[in-house]
Formats: sequence, structure tokens, C-alpha cells
Amino acid sequence: MARNIDFDALVRGVLAGETRAIAKMMSEAEAGFDDGRAAMAEIYRRAGRAQVIGLTGVPGSGKSTLVGALTTAVRATGRRVGIVAVDPSSPFSGGAILGDRVRMAEHTTDDGVFIRSLATRGSLGGLAGAALDTVDILDAAGFDLVLIETVGVGQDEVDIATAAHTVVVVSAPGLGDDIQAIKAGVLEIADIHVVSKADRDDANRTATDLQAMLGLGLTGKDRRGWPVPVIRTSAETGEGVDELLASIDAHGTHLSDSGEIEERRRSIAEMRVLKTAEDLVRAKITAGRDTEFRQILNDAAERKTAPATAARELIQNLKIES
Amino acid sequence: MARNIDFDALVRGVLAGETRAIAKMMSEAEAGFDDGRAAMAEIYRRAGRAQVIGLTGVPGSGKSTLVGALTTAVRATGRRVGIVAVDPSSPFSGGAILGDRVRMAEHTTDDGVFIRSLATRGSLGGLAGAALDTVDILDAAGFDLVLIETVGVGQDEVDIATAAHTVVVVSAPGLGDDIQAIKAGVLEIADIHVVSKADRDDANRTATDLQAMLGLGLTGKDRRGWPVPVIRTSAETGEGVDELLASIDAHGTHLSDSGEIEERRRSIAEMRVLKTAEDLVRAKITAGRDTEFRQILNDAAERKTAPATAARELIQNLKIES
Repeated sequence: MARNIDFDALVRGVLAGETRAIAKMMSEAEAGFDDGRAAMAEIYRRAGRAQVIGLTGVPGSGKSTLVGALTTAVRATGRRVGIVAVDPSSPFSGGAILGDRVRMAEHTTDDGVFIRSLATRGSLGGLAGAALDTVDILDAAGFDLVLIETVGVGQDEVDIATAAHTVVVVSAPGLGDDIQAIKAGVLEIADIHVVSKADRDDANRTATDLQAMLGLGLTGKDRRGWPVPVIRTSAETGEGVDELLASIDAHGTHLSDSGEIEERRRSIAEMRVLKTAEDLVRAKITAGRDTEFRQILNDAAERKTAPATAARELIQNLKIES
Repeated sequence: MARNIDFDALVRGVLAGETRAIAKMMSEAEAGFDDGRAAMAEIYRRAGRAQVIGLTGVPGSGKSTLVGALTTAVRATGRRVGIVAVDPSSPFSGGAILGDRVRMAEHTTDDGVFIRSLATRGSLGGLAGAALDTVDILDAAGFDLVLIETVGVGQDEVDIATAAHTVVVVSAPGLGDDIQAIKAGVLEIADIHVVSKADRDDANRTATDLQAMLGLGLTGKDRRGWPVPVIRTSAETGEGVDELLASIDAHGTHLSDSGEIEERRRSIAEMRVLKTAEDLVRAKITAGRDTEFRQILNDAAERKTAPATAARELIQNLKIES
């Protein structure tokens, strides 16, 4: 497809930190057209300097409010911050994204802050791929910190948070046990725990529970001696936000000093390549289901062939060009 | 791998409805060893008679309680029912599954009921694949209805619910807006809506909201004239459970009479083949990352190659045997 876009100029614009070029490149990355692939590859090669912070928590944990407060704290140090908000809600609900935007209103006139919301559930390109391309664009554009905010409920969202150098998991006091159970899988990925709404009476209980969990050694990965902190924050009083930023900075230093950053870069790259490969396979099969793969899918639908057999046939017949 | 399992006898045992054979076959399907593949393919060919009901709702919607009540109602008609409970919580939390089992205690001595819980987050075989194999085993074993219960929060769980002939979405009154927003993507897949906790004052409001949504035509797929009902149930009083079963039966009849069942079978098979292909690609790449794919992944980690390029190289080098 020839769309006559000057991708060289677009990449130069991103590297120069131009807002319009950044936004345009993000739209291209989300759309995932073939002709934009070389430009995105160049962005990827030029990225790698920013500290990427994954911030996740269940709905109602107050993480969007915290992102706003953290952004203010980062800006007070003079650093620039990019924010990628991932919300997998369907088109039927625009509420959450709109809400985030309203909460971030104070930052929208500050060109040291760039906010991008993604809501691509069901998109063929894949949510994780689009989110991480967006992170790279902000990174290549010179933002010092990039925050990815996800709802910690689905595997995609957990993967996205895991693709950060520093993972912050936000817990709120007083959410029901059922809701907390969803995020059990998320707790162990935290490099830093935050208990939000620290002004509430039951915040101590939540912090104590987290500390008990950490005491049991249930922290998922080897962190080379990094002591996972539990930080209490309050959006009301501003308590804990500076401490959270200090902890994020300390974790960045720890990653470099311990050499753990190399391992993280490797595992993040692996995850991204894997996700991209899955997305490619899915897109290719979906595109071919009405033509070359119809017989294979028909046989599976009529229970003549098992899904495992049909899947092998499809993969053997896949033609993926480089 | 030779494990000396008599798979022919195992398949015969499943088809004869023997409890031990069913449980053993389910473990094999979850483990996904190569030598069990032919047996699972045979099960798949022999399945296809049961009505498969997907039942989904956010945590706290009372869906596990509803599954218990519905099971009692089905048994009162003499039919046999298989239940697959999918809970993607991490191993750190066993709470929800244990809870379900306690709630289902009255059925555990009834051999007209078979309950299987799956909690395989992070498993290589894939959650959806394992869940749908489990459904086929129950189907081939002669259960008349198979219920799949999922937490409607991640894409995997939505896919699993969608792989049913009849999709029931459970909403509870009074859950926070944030939580309801998560499931916005789930509402449109419902063939039947249930408002649980109908004894609560705010249940009417929830039912009215759902009816308003249906009135706007936001019902996702063409249902060939099936009017999506909104049914109120109460676990306290037993209200609505018989009505729900009648509606499930009516939907089964509608699918056959309208011929829509053929379309559903086709789209379910497509989804399964696609998921299986993705799982295969993921497993193959993951297995090869320490040997044949190391250079490709290294180049991506060092930002010499973009993830999209690396993914294409990996797929071109995949060797998937049939």
C-alpha cells in the first residue's frame, strides 16, 4: 500500500521530540501498516534510554489518581514524562478513559508531559505490541520516564506491566476479597508496592498483609538484593508520592549497578518478539480463513479434524514474508 | 515420550462415562503431552451432542452461587451436567476455587454432576485450549449440559465464554462503576442476561439498564430473531432459576430451529484452531529460546533488530511437525 507518507521525516520529527510527529507515529504504530514497519524499526533501534515504569492495579485502586500525582512530582525535578494508559474496555464504555483524561487535565498544557490512551481490545495488531511501540516512541522522543498504566486483570495487561524496568503495583484498602483475588497473579511482579488511600483506617491492614507476603519470600523473581518496599500514598494529602518517586529512582540505580538491567532488557525483548509472532500468526490465519484455510477450518467445525491437528496444518501452510 | 498409558482404554472409559477415566483424560488434556494427542482427537470427533453454556460475570456477581442453583434445577429434570470452572488466579491464591468447591458440596456425591476447576494461568498449553478440551471430554462422556464458568475480565476468559452455544452473562446490582466498566466488553456476547441478587433494592435499576442497552440494539451479534431476555435471580429465595433454565432450553431449541447452531459451531471451531495455533507457536519459540533462536532474541534485546523483524525470522524458522 502506497500512502505517500514521508516516514524519514516522521522519524526525524519523533527524534527531535515534535509533538505532532510523535502523535502521528503512534497512530501509525497502532494501525500497524506494512509501510510503517521500517520507521518503527528505526524508532526501536534509537530507543532504550528512558526508565520505563509499569504501574498496575485493579479498578478502584486509585492508580490513575496516583499517576497524576507522580507526574507532578517528576515534573518538579525537571524531567519529562510520557504516559501510556492501557484500558481494554470495549467501545461500549468510554468512561474510564475519559475519566483519566479529566484527572490529567492539569498536565495537558505542559509539553514535558505526553499522554496517550490505548483501548484496542480485539484489535488484530495486539494490545501489548501497540502499547510497547508507543513506549518506544516516547523513549526515542527523549522522555526521561515513561509510565505505562494498566488495569491488572488480564494476561495482556500483566504482560505489558512486566515489560517495564520498574513495576509498581497499587493496592487499595477495603476492596472485596473477590477483587483482590484477581490480582493475586499480579502481586509477585511488583518491584515496588503502593497502598493507596493511606488516609483510610484499613490501609494499615493492607500494608501489613503485603509486608507479610514479602516476608514469606513470595516475590516472584530474583531481584539481586533489592528490598521490595511497601509505600503508602494518599491523593488527598499528597503523602508518599515523593517517597514513591525516590523509590523508583533508587530502583533504576539498582538495576544499573547490579547489572540486572541487562536481564530485564533480555526478557522484555523476548516477550515482545513472542507476542509479535503470535499476533502475526493470528492475523495471517484470520485473513486466510475465507480462502486458503477454509477447508481446514470446515473439517474442524464438522469434528472430522481435531483443533490440534488443524492448527498444525495451518502453521505448516503459513507464508510469512520478512 | 513413552509412558505406557493405554489411551484406547482411556477413550473407551470416557465414552462409557466412567468417572476415573474422565478425570484422567482431563489431566492428560491439561498436561498436553504429544502421546495423548490422538486420544484427545478421538474425543473431539465423538463430542458435539451436549449443549454448552458459557456463564460469565465479574467477581462478586454471584455467578458461582448461581451455577450451584442451576445445577440443582437441571438435575431435577433428570439431565446430567458437567461444570468447568475457570479461574485464572495465580497459585498464590487458591481461595476462589476452594470457595466454589464448598458451595458445590451438595453435588459432589451425585454422579450426574461432574465438576472440574482449571487454574492454569501461565501454562504453556493455554487456558482456553485446556478448558475447551475439558468441555469436549464431558460432552463425549454423555453429559447433557456442560457449563463453563469464567470470570469475565480477561480476553482468554471472554474467548472461553464465547466458545459456548449459549452465553449467560451475570450482572449484580450495586457493584462499582469501575468494576462494571471492565465487563462492558462482555455484555454484548450475552444470549441471556441474569441480574443476580434480585432481592436487593437496586436490582431493578440494573435490570432496567440492561434492557435499555438491549433496546439500543447493542447486542453484538445477529441472533436470528432471538430476543435476549433479562432474568432476575435470587440465591436466597430461589427466584428466577427455573426461568433461567427454561430460557437456556429455549435458546437451545432456537439455535437448532433457526440453523444458527451451524454458524456457532463454525465460529467456535475457528476460535479454537486459532488459539491452538498461537499456543503451538508460543511453546515452540519458548522451547527454542536457549538454543536455535538465541541469536535472533539477542539482537532484539540489544536493539539491533526490531521485534517485528525478529518475529518474522522466528516464524520462518519454526518447524512444526504434524
